[in-house]
Amino acid sequence: MAGLFITFEGGDGSGKTTQAQLLSDWLAGEGRTVVRTREPGGTELGLELREIVLHSRGHISPRAEALLYAADRAHNIATVVRPAVDRGDIVIQDRYIDSSVAYQGAGRVLDGDEIRGISLWASEGMLPQLTVLLDLDETVGRARLDSARTRFDRLEAEKQEFHARVRAAYLALAEAEPGRFLVLDAAEPVDALAESIRERVSALL
Amino acid sequence: MAGLFITFEGGDGSGKTTQAQLLSDWLAGEGRTVVRTREPGGTELGLELREIVLHSRGHISPRAEALLYAADRAHNIATVVRPAVDRGDIVIQDRYIDSSVAYQGAGRVLDGDEIRGISLWASEGMLPQLTVLLDLDETVGRARLDSARTRFDRLEAEKQEFHARVRAAYLALAEAEPGRFLVLDAAEPVDALAESIRERVSALL
Repeated sequence: MAGLFITFEGGDGSGKTTQAQLLSDWLAGEGRTVVRTREPGGTELGLELREIVLHSRGHISPRAEALLYAADRAHNIATVVRPAVDRGDIVIQDRYIDSSVAYQGAGRVLDGDEIRGISLWASEGMLPQLTVLLDLDETVGRARLDSARTRFDRLEAEKQEFHARVRAAYLALAEAEPGRFLVLDAAEPVDALAESIRERVSALL
Repeated sequence: MAGLFITFEGGDGSGKTTQAQLLSDWLAGEGRTVVRTREPGGTELGLELREIVLHSRGHISPRAEALLYAADRAHNIATVVRPAVDRGDIVIQDRYIDSSVAYQGAGRVLDGDEIRGISLWASEGMLPQLTVLLDLDETVGRARLDSARTRFDRLEAEKQEFHARVRAAYLALAEAEPGRFLVLDAAEPVDALAESIRERVSALL
């Protein structure tokens, strides 16, 4: 692989977007070409699917939801991530396969291995070199969201028990692949987190 | 299974809709409760997805397209087909798993077995008791569509070579599962086709 593919994972309110932006700024300052993307919604097609999965009023069956995320993923990897990495760029992405396994798998009571298999088929086996997991007690994440006072999307509005299952699933994924994951305590100060992430990324450059 | 699940397959212009309607009318006349559905677009969610896969102007990557069909399928099976069959109704559906294998598999040069595997995951293994394949030379199908003068959707506008691969894939599927398929020559008169279909369905009732 010519470039680098880095993903950020964690519950809502864990600071993924902030840390992804800080890393992106630092890498750009080092003269690297950075591509920022996210799931769902990293492409035009993805935006349509994001609207459906996050803001649709009707019920969406669990398998249909998982497959919509996989479709968004397939398109984003094929048209954004893989071409950028092939060019030698650094792709920094909010959420990826681990989100699907944690949210659809643990959260929706589907089989995590099956979800992962479908995701890997969607992405033609593309895994990041580094996944930063911003681990946060789900009650703290919820309090951060409450104070932001934005409207909750469908997943944010799920019950706390759901978010506890998601967090446990994330931690199990990180334990299974310690080489890929950097697990950080998202309650740490923003600067300290950013420094830890830069250190790990430096080692990969 | 309390009811019956029957699917119609074949290229565009092969007469699926006509035959599905004739069968539906006959069964209703026999006092059966019939549910007519189709893929893509058998549900409200499916209609949104149908609009995306058939009429989107942008390029859709092959795996994303396959996963969108699978998402539509998952939702339609979970919310329409399975509940109806469980009630004892007869579900008559335009296009199902075999369409995905034939169009996305053979047509888009993805692995047919993988496409089938994803479809079966989407539907939790739901297969029809009967699949009527209306087999038609692809040039005849195209001529029928031309004379109808409606606007072509994305798949109809594909090259003839694509439709020849789809037809060959359909016939291979039917050969692999002779117990499920009824293969008919779609060039036969409408009434003769309808009679053959009624005969086979009668045996299942």
